[in-house]
Amino acid sequence: MDAGAAAQSRPWLALGQEIIEVLEKVDLEAFFRVVRAFDDCKRRWFFSGQGRSGLAASMAAMRAMHLGRIVHVVGEASAPSIRAGDGLLMISGSGETPVSVAFARVAKAERAVLIVVTRQPESLLANLADEVLHVPVTRSAQFGGSLFEQCSLILLDAVIFELGRHLPDAHAHMAHRHTNLQ
Amino acid sequence: MDAGAAAQSRPWLALGQEIIEVLEKVDLEAFFRVVRAFDDCKRRWFFSGQGRSGLAASMAAMRAMHLGRIVHVVGEASAPSIRAGDGLLMISGSGETPVSVAFARVAKAERAVLIVVTRQPESLLANLADEVLHVPVTRSAQFGGSLFEQCSLILLDAVIFELGRHLPDAHAHMAHRHTNLQ
Amino acid sequence: MDAGAAAQSRPWLALGQEIIEVLEKVDLEAFFRVVRAFDDCKRRWFFSGQGRSGLAASMAAMRAMHLGRIVHVVGEASAPSIRAGDGLLMISGSGETPVSVAFARVAKAERAVLIVVTRQPESLLANLADEVLHVPVTRSAQFGGSLFEQCSLILLDAVIFELGRHLPDAHAHMAHRHTNLQ
Amino acid sequence: MDAGAAAQSRPWLALGQEIIEVLEKVDLEAFFRVVRAFDDCKRRWFFSGQGRSGLAASMAAMRAMHLGRIVHVVGEASAPSIRAGDGLLMISGSGETPVSVAFARVAKAERAVLIVVTRQPESLLANLADEVLHVPVTRSAQFGGSLFEQCSLILLDAVIFELGRHLPDAHAHMAHRHTNLQ
Repeated sequence: MDAGAAAQSRPWLALGQEIIEVLEKVDLEAFFRVVRAFDDCKRRWFFSGQGRSGLAASMAAMRAMHLGRIVHVVGEASAPSIRAGDGLLMISGSGETPVSVAFARVAKAERAVLIVVTRQPESLLANLADEVLHVPVTRSAQFGGSLFEQCSLILLDAVIFELGRHLPDAHAHMAHRHTNLQ
Repeated sequence: MDAGAAAQSRPWLALGQEIIEVLEKVDLEAFFRVVRAFDDCKRRWFFSGQGRSGLAASMAAMRAMHLGRIVHVVGEASAPSIRAGDGLLMISGSGETPVSVAFARVAKAERAVLIVVTRQPESLLANLADEVLHVPVTRSAQFGGSLFEQCSLILLDAVIFELGRHLPDAHAHMAHRHTNLQ
Repeated sequence: MDAGAAAQSRPWLALGQEIIEVLEKVDLEAFFRVVRAFDDCKRRWFFSGQGRSGLAASMAAMRAMHLGRIVHVVGEASAPSIRAGDGLLMISGSGETPVSVAFARVAKAERAVLIVVTRQPESLLANLADEVLHVPVTRSAQFGGSLFEQCSLILLDAVIFELGRHLPDAHAHMAHRHTNLQ
Repeated sequence: MDAGAAAQSRPWLALGQEIIEVLEKVDLEAFFRVVRAFDDCKRRWFFSGQGRSGLAASMAAMRAMHLGRIVHVVGEASAPSIRAGDGLLMISGSGETPVSVAFARVAKAERAVLIVVTRQPESLLANLADEVLHVPVTRSAQFGGSLFEQCSLILLDAVIFELGRHLPDAHAHMAHRHTNLQ
């Protein structure tokens, strides 16, 4: 049985193939510009997105916190105002989600750094961004933004992986920060 | 029309009367022990509770953040592990909510400070606590913990009020930290 | 010691007095129009608000669910789109919170019913609303919207109380729906 | 440049390779038992998990809601009690997360159906489950449960994909339910 037939009978492999096809087209330079943006351990980072993009942003935020970064998720009760010198990482497939665009405009007006993860590099959000991580989703058998959201999660986990791989005892430090209230 | 009749025709006044009756029995010493526990601006505070108690805890956490305290809400993606030297403020009407008791035990095992807001001063949580803020709810016409939750919110807002009233420009500093992403 | 002196030495009583002063000025007709809007047990209700207003809206939503209403909180993963025939209850002190105004406009464009709880009866949100529950906060010693949020919670709990008081076994039915996962 | 070298210079491809290796070992029968468990459109489904597993569960819950299923996320204000005839889908890498185990025990005591997504088929949670979706993660270069969480998200999205692919106009129906408040 060839790969296509196997994927048809095991639908999760078809999704895996879609993901790999997108990941293979991600730009190396753009990825490492995002990694370098997170190099500064003193910068506060806000993570945001609506719907499933927002949940993927929360997943990335949690790992960034484990790595020792100062992290807030927009909408959490503990999140303060965003100001100059802070960073905002925004996930939006269309790059046009109204609430996300409104937040990005506030962030830029405050002179915060804006990173946008999107499949639309010509969108409103991409045009506002200091760095764009383009997730090159062109077509998918799945509903709506699912392929985009899966790839965004993997790419941001790869950013965390890249930031952590050169640290001594990264896993031990990350485990120590992992919540013990669950 | 006397106060009772007025309250009957305007049901929110009956709730207001219930609240005042509880607030009048709150212990002065216990309240100010909680205020003093928050005096240390360097301590990280975790806020927790289940259901509506947890939402009231989040409301208090937000104001504590506005005041400049280092604040986390348990369950938020950005919340790290709790460790020695941290504080946990737990709201639980019964003082026996299983998840809350489990978290309080972890916090005490880590040697964190535990403040419990409860209507049951003989409960599991109260017995684990370093400080108990007893909310003396005895009976209520309302469903379940509503009166307890209303009083807990007001009492914790009073703690914030007391912490802020002696600071110069407290309202300006608090407004500056209030989220600008909404 | 008179009431003013007692309140000064016990700051939570000063907050309680602020609350009662607001509650006494709430309009009877407006309150019962909100109660009647919730009479229809088939209508889906969405609850929303930003920051602490959103947390108070979540607290009200939970009790409405206990009462047997079909309830969603905007932003929850389980919340579907709002459509004609649905209701949106929005809490906003200023009545001008940008995200809340944007949501209210979508709701009205879909021909949903809009109830606004606000301290500003001349605001954008109030002008969009089918029913306004005016929380007549004029001044407060507290920071920001605290007094408004406390009163909004109490008023919405009073709506729930009023809806439940005429039902046989309301408390038993509500307790049965109260989450057992906590 | 061969695949290994490419993955080394483009770290997200190394993550993609880890994911594919896990997905290829997922059991066909177990996957379709989970698909069939969701066939019943009348059953209420609760989704749960702690930390990033909980966020992945929320992402799956949202798509199940789009598909027309009755969905709650444990911990959301709108979530009622779980009862006989309901379903609980729990994600836990270790299968031993204390809060998740406690919730699963309540669900089973109520005679709800329990589906557990885990990398540990001999864990407490797996032993409580009616159906186990084993995510066969054995080793990973990534921190903690990242690979497990990525694969769990993809597998549950594949369950949704499988449930939707045979429906006429599935994408149109799902888009109609997708929140319009964002």
